[in-house]
This record gives sequence, C-alpha cells and structure tokens, in this order.
Amino acid sequence: DRITVGILTISDRCSSGEATDFSGQNLAQLIEEGIIPNAKLAASGCVADDQRNIIEALEHWCDHLRLNLILTTGGTGVAPRDVTPEAVRAVIQKEVTGLSFLMTSSSLKSTQFAALSRPVCGIRDTSLIVTLPGSQKGSEECLRFVASVLPHALDLISNRTSKLNTTHQ
Amino acid sequence: DRITVGILTISDRCSSGEATDFSGQNLAQLIEEGIIPNAKLAASGCVADDQRNIIEALEHWCDHLRLNLILTTGGTGVAPRDVTPEAVRAVIQKEVTGLSFLMTSSSLKSTQFAALSRPVCGIRDTSLIVTLPGSQKGSEECLRFVASVLPHALDLISNRTSKLNTTHQ
Amino acid sequence: DRITVGILTISDRCSSGEATDFSGQNLAQLIEEGIIPNAKLAASGCVADDQRNIIEALEHWCDHLRLNLILTTGGTGVAPRDVTPEAVRAVIQKEVTGLSFLMTSSSLKSTQFAALSRPVCGIRDTSLIVTLPGSQKGSEECLRFVASVLPHALDLISNRTSKLNTTHQ
Ligand code: NA
Repeated sequence: DRITVGILTISDRCSSGEATDFSGQNLAQLIEEGIIPNAKLAASGCVADDQRNIIEALEHWCDHLRLNLILTTGGTGVAPRDVTPEAVRAVIQKEVTGLSFLMTSSSLKSTQFAALSRPVCGIRDTSLIVTLPGSQKGSEECLRFVASVLPHALDLISNRTSKLNTTHQ
Repeated sequence: DRITVGILTISDRCSSGEATDFSGQNLAQLIEEGIIPNAKLAASGCVADDQRNIIEALEHWCDHLRLNLILTTGGTGVAPRDVTPEAVRAVIQKEVTGLSFLMTSSSLKSTQFAALSRPVCGIRDTSLIVTLPGSQKGSEECLRFVASVLPHALDLISNRTSKLNTTHQ
Repeated sequence: DRITVGILTISDRCSSGEATDFSGQNLAQLIEEGIIPNAKLAASGCVADDQRNIIEALEHWCDHLRLNLILTTGGTGVAPRDVTPEAVRAVIQKEVTGLSFLMTSSSLKSTQFAALSRPVCGIRDTSLIVTLPGSQKGSEECLRFVASVLPHALDLISNRTSKLNTTHQ
C-alpha cells in the first residue's frame, strides 16, 4: 500500500483568493516527484488561519480519509493570526518532539529567524501531522530536513514492520 | 513607537532584601545601552519564587501596561522553589519553542549544565515573555543569544509590518 | 546519603516473558559500576506498555520509595503501543526540557532516526524521571549523554547544596 499524503495550506490570503498558494502547489509537486518514496498525494486543500477550521480539516483527514501523513504549510509564526501549532496540539494524541527538533536545528543553521517558527509534529491514531512554514522556500527546506525519516516513522505508526524497524529496535 | 520592556526579577532572596538584584540591574542597563534597537525600559520589579505572585505580575504587565517585551530572570532551574516556567506557561497563549531552543542550544556550547535551565518563551496578546536564568552572566548571555531576532518577533506579534517581515515571508 | 536509582523497563514483550530485558540489566550494571558517582540501585522492575501501569509504577517509586532518580527504558517511540512520554507527563510536576534536548541533540549526531524518539524528563517532588530509549545501545548512549549533569541536578532537586551549586548560581 502506498503512503497517502494530504497537503493543507493554512493562510487567510490564499483561502480568500487574494494570494496564490505557491507553497501548497510546490509541496504537491515534491510528493508527486517522489521526495518520500512510495507516497502519493491523496488530498489537498486550503483553510483560513482559524483554529476551528484547521481542527475540522485535520480531524476529517485523520478520522475519515485516514491519511498516513498530513503536511500543513503556514500559520506557525508569531503573528496574531498564526494558530496552526495550537490547532495541531488540539488534535494530536502524541507529540513527536524530535521531528520539530530536527526541523528547528536544521533551519537555524541558515537563519536565526528560524527561532520564530513554531513547528509541532504529532500523531492522531495512524496519521502523522507535520507542520511546515508558510513560505515556499521554508516549507520545501523543512520537508527535506525530515523526509528521510518519514517512511520509517509511518511504518512504525501504522504498525507495519520494515527491515529498518527490525534492525533499529 | 518605541518597544516597551519590563524586567521582572524572580528571586526569594532579592525579594526579601537578603540579596542584591545584580541580574535585573544589569539587564536594565543592557536595555538602556540599546542591546535591542529602539527599546526602552518601561517597568522593573522583583517578586518571590511564588507561582501566584509571578502570574499576577506578568498578567499586570501584559494586560494593563501592555508591555511589548517582558524579560524574567531567575526561577528557571530544577530546585523546589524554581517555578518560573510553570507560571509563564499559565499566562501565555502561544509558546515560542524556537526561542527557548536558540537559548538552550547556544548555552550548551559553553556548559552541559545549561541542560538544567528550563526556559519558556511565549506570547500573551501582544506581549512576548522571555525567561532568562537567574545568574547575571547567564541572563546576559541568553539575552544576547536572542536579541537579534527580538525586534522582528515584536513587529510580527504587534502586527507591525517591517521590511524584514515582507522579505522573510 | 547515596543517590537511590530505580530502573523501570517498559515493554510488552519483556513484561510477558517473551523477551529478555537486556536494556534494564545493562542499565543496572552501569549504575553498579558507578556511571553516576555515589549512586546505588534501589529498585528495578518491568511493566507492559500500558499507560495506567506505567503511571502506577512511577507514582509508587516517587511517593513511597522516594527514589532520587528513575530511569525508564522503552516506550518512547512512535508505535501505537509507545506511551511512555504520555505516562511520564501525567506524573511530573515540572518538565526539564534541557535534559531531553541534550539527549536528542547528542543522539542526532549519530542518526537522524533519533528524531523518532520522544524523551521526556521531569520532576515529581524530589524524584527526577529520565526516559531512555528501549534498545540496549540507545539507552546506554542516552544515559551517558546526561550522566555528567545528573549529580548536580539531583542535589538541586533535593535542595542539598553542593560546591558546584554555589559557584554556578
Ligand atoms: Na497557556
């Protein structure tokens, strides 16, 4: 079975049609080009920076579409409308702090301003949610920082054994 | 408008008059010397290591004085009386994990004992709260680690656009 | 007084007798060999990956045995049965984020897969709980990463003054 991926753009301006969702489109293309082996795009969408809307979208993708991986882009900063981390924390059952650690430590090597991004990664049932920054460059970079560990993570989350799983434990 | 800064010393011994508040005085001087461009000291004070007192002081400075930046010094360690992180978590609406990350990773380059400091940074409405260690040396070092990103953070938190804001997003 | 240490293995397979608890045995030997100066093994045990069982074991060791240090091994990953971090969060009063930071940053130097471990360190009254990975190699490595700061941490947590305490503050 292929890994099913959803890409959720979180942006007032993209949601209202004022701006084009370059980040979401770019992430979709990266998935289709195989940045995560054996993964396919299964859903994409855009919601405003509203905690209730974000939670509903994430719950629907986890509980009904049962996506393996949800990438969000946007809303992780410190501006008043940035509420993605709070919405993600409300839907996850387990936080995967190490994935956020990997993104923040890798991003800080390029710019100190990475300290103002607030990534949250976590698990709801068998879905992994990873928050990426809103900019096209930042979201692609952060996805690349974690891409190599995602297939193994998704195997473990869905209780599929993999060769790596067996040797790593 | 200039950035308004409050410095809150959290220490049983300074609060009771047993010890002199060198850390708070030093932080005040650093602000007045311009360590954060365009910032001015707007409030300073000292409270005991008591969660209720700390929360009241922070809420007053956020909700009534509407300070842009609150620096605390003290109470972030692992001793029984160290409750600053718990008090800060109770008043913030959003945690800025990356700022704590930047302080911890920078501090760990000098000493492993930085692992015993428990910084928490976060936002309440338009106020940013940053916890610094209690020692004069530690608090100055940690402030220097984050000083360069604070003006941009404060612009975003108060929804002021800045040149950097526009180019960074 | 010597530092009292408890080692709690968290594993369905070791708990049921299906697998041998090599990680717990190895940690016990490291304590007896003096990896933490002045520490002695005071308790050891094994529970299944069940949140209620883990919480009960931790509360008993903190509240009745009043152990200074509890090392857990296992259950910190991302698989459905991995619930150690959630159980530890439920019993601690203060999180010591820096200790987890030190383990994650040190582990990431060897392998990116360290991003999938979810360490939580924290304090309940005068007991420090440190979660280690389940594998023998991983648990020994992570204990070594933090061993040098644990005696000072335990002095502070139990309010014993040490020379280092005095000079560090
Ligand atoms: Na809060």
